[in-house]
Amino acid sequence: MSKLIDDFRTYREAMNEKLLATENKTIKRLYSLDALTYQDGALPARTKEMLGLVASMVLRCDDCIKYHLEQCFKMDVTTCEILEIFAVANVVGGTIVIPHTRRAMEYWMELAEGTAD
Amino acid sequence: MSKLIDDFRTYREAMNEKLLATENKTIKRLYSLDALTYQDGALPARTKEMLGLVASMVLRCDDCIKYHLEQCFKMDVTTCEILEIFAVANVVGGTIVIPHTRRAMEYWMELAEGTAD
Amino acid sequence: MSKLIDDFRTYREAMNEKLLATENKTIKRLYSLDALTYQDGALPARTKEMLGLVASMVLRCDDCIKYHLEQCFKMDVTTCEILEIFAVANVVGGTIVIPHTRRAMEYWMELAEGTAD
Amino acid sequence: MSKLIDDFRTYREAMNEKLLATENKTIKRLYSLDALTYQDGALPARTKEMLGLVASMVLRCDDCIKYHLEQCFKMDVTTCEILEIFAVANVVGGTIVIPHTRRAMEYWMELAEGTAD
Amino acid sequence: MSKLIDDFRTYREAMNEKLLATENKTIKRLYSLDALTYQDGALPARTKEMLGLVASMVLRCDDCIKYHLEQCFKMDVTTCEILEIFAVANVVGGTIVIPHTRRAMEYWMELAEGTAD
Amino acid sequence: MSKLIDDFRTYREAMNEKLLATENKTIKRLYSLDALTYQDGALPARTKEMLGLVASMVLRCDDCIKYHLEQCFKMDVTTCEILEIFAVANVVGGTIVIPHTRRAMEYWMELAEGTAD
Repeated sequence: MSKLIDDFRTYREAMNEKLLATENKTIKRLYSLDALTYQDGALPARTKEMLGLVASMVLRCDDCIKYHLEQCFKMDVTTCEILEIFAVANVVGGTIVIPHTRRAMEYWMELAEGTAD
Repeated sequence: MSKLIDDFRTYREAMNEKLLATENKTIKRLYSLDALTYQDGALPARTKEMLGLVASMVLRCDDCIKYHLEQCFKMDVTTCEILEIFAVANVVGGTIVIPHTRRAMEYWMELAEGTAD
Repeated sequence: MSKLIDDFRTYREAMNEKLLATENKTIKRLYSLDALTYQDGALPARTKEMLGLVASMVLRCDDCIKYHLEQCFKMDVTTCEILEIFAVANVVGGTIVIPHTRRAMEYWMELAEGTAD
Repeated sequence: MSKLIDDFRTYREAMNEKLLATENKTIKRLYSLDALTYQDGALPARTKEMLGLVASMVLRCDDCIKYHLEQCFKMDVTTCEILEIFAVANVVGGTIVIPHTRRAMEYWMELAEGTAD
Repeated sequence: MSKLIDDFRTYREAMNEKLLATENKTIKRLYSLDALTYQDGALPARTKEMLGLVASMVLRCDDCIKYHLEQCFKMDVTTCEILEIFAVANVVGGTIVIPHTRRAMEYWMELAEGTAD
Repeated sequence: MSKLIDDFRTYREAMNEKLLATENKTIKRLYSLDALTYQDGALPARTKEMLGLVASMVLRCDDCIKYHLEQCFKMDVTTCEILEIFAVANVVGGTIVIPHTRRAMEYWMELAEGTAD
């Protein structure tokens, strides 16, 4: 696994654990609500992850983008599809989204390379 | 057609015309880029309109939401699917998205009622 | 009750009902999570409503501002306190918050006048 | 004067007065800092108003846009220049800025028509 | 002192000095207005720092969050209170705030550990 | 050249190449639209770069800020002018812009020092 991917996952998991360990009810429920939201429903989980990705991009949250890229990757979203999601995000959100798209592209490529091992 | 829908469309069209009539090159190209972005590709236009809708919701732009609701409606997105898009937008963007969701719901219902005529 | 207050409440309630009637699980749970968040805890509900107000102001959501102004009003937040919350919001969020502060001030004054009846 | 312009100015002035009458120090100083910021300096006031306009557009604050359009108008910014500011705002901020550009265009045209009287 | 805390403070101080040394009047006054805003008034400084924290969180500015966490820490805000501020920020601002909450939690824990020395 | 400047330029160029190499039409056209927008027109390119800078600052995108600082530097924008752009951004966008202003100041100083070599 690439260092970029590993660092993201390790930190994310460690700090999520700390936050959940605090037993703050609102935070716990928000986390479980988050999980519920992306489950198969009228829309398949795969489409919902695409929605989560584009939303994260226009809101310009790099960590959220990484997370949804991982989910999209697991659900076999293709590189061509990912690029069209990038395109929607860049047109809706403007050139201000470009730096986040560069980092998203890097992360996606590292996810894809991982499978070549 | 409901007054809400009619007002939105009339104003939007009138002012788009004014803006395009100015012959500002950047604005003209951005408009045509916008149209290009949502065409069928690796992802179908229908999915792209859903992406446009969720992006508009988390960025909290009522007019953009209305526009993408219209496109989704034309492409036979169901009410259950629309609600799941609302759900993703509300969880990603927080309760700050709720007032926009109320207005989106109203607009969607008026679009749906229009077909009952 | 002033027309401004009445319009806000009536529309808000009517559309919340429509949204909850859809039985979308995520939306229902987000609404109940929202209610849970502002209950007395380590911080009193009154302080939490102030937090909700300042957050709504810097995110520039007029309807959210109105809602939290109502809650603050019910919990006897004073006009001087409200103004200091406005001040924090304006300094953190910049002059872009001023138009929302004008509308917030109007709404607060109408709430206060209502008690004079 | 058009109703659109008149309504904006009347409400803005009335509520600014109310806010300043509260004698909240932070708010008073922010207002005077705001005035100071746009005065001639290394950059002429005219350029600064253009900066204020583009900043208001990408942050999507209609009232702030109207205010800076008025200032630009007073300082003889031309329609061609205004459109290039709109163009920068739309490219940086994306299509989400378009609805605000429509309203900005309408306001600018009403300002311009006023001079034809 | 932890490296995380030290790095933040050192860079912040050094660059603030550079900015103030430029003698730009607007910047100088904004800095002093910022200090004024958080002083005891109708609301105690402690509450105002909480307001500053929640505003920084929903606007997703990591450095602003760190600064207000430091101020809250100095004013004996408890960990339970901090978590309830995190909760409000996450519900108002959505899951997009979670990555910032992870970093805020880490910073808060390092502040708390420092006192154990 | 400083490491800060070099790192930014190297990564930016490398990833832009990757994105353009994908042959996604929307992304390619957005990049060329971006270039078109800042060309001399009714407003000189120099003014447009200032507009791009202030827009990037209020939207709080560090990489966009760096890019426009570079363009401003090439077009002989003076340090006094840059500071007045910073001032507008900080007043419009609030103290939330300060951390980005610190990093912008650092980058500008490194650009300026480079010319002293």
